[in-house]
Amino acid sequence: MSTSGPDVTISTLTPRATATHRAIITEVTVTPVAFADPPLLNSVGVHEPFALRAIVVVRTADGVYGLGETYGDEAHVTRLNRAAALLIGADAFNINQISALVAESLLEDQGLGGHGTGGMVTTTSLQDRVLSAFDVAALDIQGKILGVPVSTLLGGAVRDEVAFSGYLFYKWAGHPGQSPDAWGGAVDPAGIVAQARKMVNDYGFTALKLKGGVFEPEIEAATIEALREAFPEMPLRIDPNGVWTVQTAIKVGKRLEPVLEYLEDPCLSIADNAAVRAAVNLPIATNMCVVSFNDVPPAIAAGAVDIVLSDHHFWGGLRRSQGLASIAETFKLGLSMHSNSHLGISFAAMIQLAAATKNIDYACDTHWPWKLASDDVIVPGVLEIKDGSVKVPTKPGLGVELDEEALERMHQQYLKCGLTKRDDTTYMQSIQPDFQLTTPRW
Amino acid sequence: MSTSGPDVTISTLTPRATATHRAIITEVTVTPVAFADPPLLNSVGVHEPFALRAIVVVRTADGVYGLGETYGDEAHVTRLNRAAALLIGADAFNINQISALVAESLLEDQGLGGHGTGGMVTTTSLQDRVLSAFDVAALDIQGKILGVPVSTLLGGAVRDEVAFSGYLFYKWAGHPGQSPDAWGGAVDPAGIVAQARKMVNDYGFTALKLKGGVFEPEIEAATIEALREAFPEMPLRIDPNGVWTVQTAIKVGKRLEPVLEYLEDPCLSIADNAAVRAAVNLPIATNMCVVSFNDVPPAIAAGAVDIVLSDHHFWGGLRRSQGLASIAETFKLGLSMHSNSHLGISFAAMIQLAAATKNIDYACDTHWPWKLASDDVIVPGVLEIKDGSVKVPTKPGLGVELDEEALERMHQQYLKCGLTKRDDTTYMQSIQPDFQLTTPRW
Ligand SMILES: [Mg+2]
Ligand SMILES: [Mg+2]
Repeated sequence: MSTSGPDVTISTLTPRATATHRAIITEVTVTPVAFADPPLLNSVGVHEPFALRAIVVVRTADGVYGLGETYGDEAHVTRLNRAAALLIGADAFNINQISALVAESLLEDQGLGGHGTGGMVTTTSLQDRVLSAFDVAALDIQGKILGVPVSTLLGGAVRDEVAFSGYLFYKWAGHPGQSPDAWGGAVDPAGIVAQARKMVNDYGFTALKLKGGVFEPEIEAATIEALREAFPEMPLRIDPNGVWTVQTAIKVGKRLEPVLEYLEDPCLSIADNAAVRAAVNLPIATNMCVVSFNDVPPAIAAGAVDIVLSDHHFWGGLRRSQGLASIAETFKLGLSMHSNSHLGISFAAMIQLAAATKNIDYACDTHWPWKLASDDVIVPGVLEIKDGSVKVPTKPGLGVELDEEALERMHQQYLKCGLTKRDDTTYMQSIQPDFQLTTPRW
Repeated sequence: MSTSGPDVTISTLTPRATATHRAIITEVTVTPVAFADPPLLNSVGVHEPFALRAIVVVRTADGVYGLGETYGDEAHVTRLNRAAALLIGADAFNINQISALVAESLLEDQGLGGHGTGGMVTTTSLQDRVLSAFDVAALDIQGKILGVPVSTLLGGAVRDEVAFSGYLFYKWAGHPGQSPDAWGGAVDPAGIVAQARKMVNDYGFTALKLKGGVFEPEIEAATIEALREAFPEMPLRIDPNGVWTVQTAIKVGKRLEPVLEYLEDPCLSIADNAAVRAAVNLPIATNMCVVSFNDVPPAIAAGAVDIVLSDHHFWGGLRRSQGLASIAETFKLGLSMHSNSHLGISFAAMIQLAAATKNIDYACDTHWPWKLASDDVIVPGVLEIKDGSVKVPTKPGLGVELDEEALERMHQQYLKCGLTKRDDTTYMQSIQPDFQLTTPRW
């Protein structure tokens, strides 16, 4: 797990002020962990019994540590370790330097695998994906040394709490062979409405998102309509993860026009979403066709999307995500946040970023409620969803602390679970052998 | 000059960590100053004997001060003072909050005047123009409290020196009625070549820019060709400030294709520059048709420009300029920096920003050599152009110190000179009564 200082060339800069001398990176550990995950259904299959993450701990000469969290897929962990080796001796105050070293670590990389999204998002930038956790850890260190929260390093908090949406999933009652989980099954409109009631009851969410792409569009549209009936004022979204044809998307979109806050990734490509957008009077949101800076110019030229669901895990960390926010503001695109299954470090990072980003226009996505409270690597008690929002930590850095024992426990859980990458499809096929990946499906 | 705390509503945020409590703004002073300026010719007339700037000094509860510098036009100074009043009690660590307060101060503002560019650039964003100096001062304070240079607050230095271009001007030997200045006259190709030799000799510049728009395009093209002959390897640029017709721009552009590094603002509008770009095989740079975030989408859609010459004075300060840098990177636009006549605080801010911006692709513009060394408000000796570059200050904050006595002297010079706004045109007409503002002129 530990990487100590090899002989690497680091571009030399004139020595800087006192604070930075404390921030020379002396150790970087990358620890894959696993946490229990319910059988959440999606277009590529079903969540496996464990979700994987990699926890990055960066330590400095002075013993200050910074935390980062990212995908736990084996190929990604290998890359993180390769980058980690080059970061020894770098300055945690110089994210530009860290970025250059990450790029250097990827020079020979073929870029295969390690997306961590089970095949749902595969066109993100390799460098930004690897940089992200180190950017977050570096900002955590900076904040701790300087005595300011990360939101301050990002320009200052514009809000003291961040709103999240309740993320609804069609799901089985439990993993095959296991007893039902606390949420129970939800495989039809009534099941989702019940799930939504629990979500809203437990967390106070003020917006709801349905993960679609699982059942016939007819059923999913009916589910949204059932949610509208149950929650007359609640902003509602649906995300079929791009498995609809343009024709289907237009048909469902028109039907849900009076109901939806936005329609998320009805189709996969920029061109197809642009065609849907032209025909349907609903904002189109995406975390699938605009997933790297390279996607921005063609998406804007095509008028394909109204809202970018940013994700610091693949947009290069918090600083680069601020660049995306500038682009969104300039091109009058809405901005919110996408989420994969995650632990507390990622959650804290999302919250610090959202706190300092004035044009976060919507309640952000999070998988947080789907995680067992006992499954995390941070000292509990800091991040709590109340009335649909989380108070922005104001302690130095990210505002969360590593629980070393919990990290070790979660790492053991990783070793024991035997998974090495996210693969919802194979797991689904082990249960429903006729399950096929087809895009578009309907 | 001083503004003390009125009763203003400031959005309340949860108290933050120690460092920020030291940064509550208790005083903001805005001091107009004047410094001697040679008779530099341009498309709107000629530089007056004095250039005006406003020096912003922001002080915190703890007695830490931050410096900002911006236009000295009366209308701008009035706005700065109005914003300053609202900033009392704000947190110098929260530039987002400062930005919101600046916006509040402008709610009733008609937006007239105060551009500080003598009519050359009149479509910048009012809010960004007013925010800029406060953003810089706030970063200066943050850096001083935290013990890091501003480049670190902006993501970390990617270079330890910043390259500038030698900025050549047609000019008279001296202001009418005054003895010639140290540079002497330059009203033809030979004069400019001599000026360039002195520039390169004194400062070691590795790129040269000619301010055009003054003489017949034929003469200005011949000047560039004379520079090429005198400096066979030197990157060369010409900037007629948009006074050419599309036809003229294409003709001159084609003639200078083998010689120029880029062609700057041949015409005024996005559409006209796009037409030039389509016909001429030269990168087009601009600080006139893309001067605010609102200009970016149409300019990109039109394919009008290759290089944005950013200017933190009208792009909302250093943090917002980083947003522009993200846009430039994403849309594969080149990036460099524009300059108006300025003093050391602006120079330090430009240098800190360039140090932390990896995609500054060209030697930046500066008027620095045209200023008397004795005319400044900072303690001298920090910023020196050597081999065409300036070493990035590594002391906390901007790395320059206020010379209070010099500030007072320069303010007295402002009061004595009687100028209240930059007006190259009226001054020119007082000397050449037949001078007309005509755009396009040729
Ligand atoms: Mg999505
Ligand atoms: Mg120009």
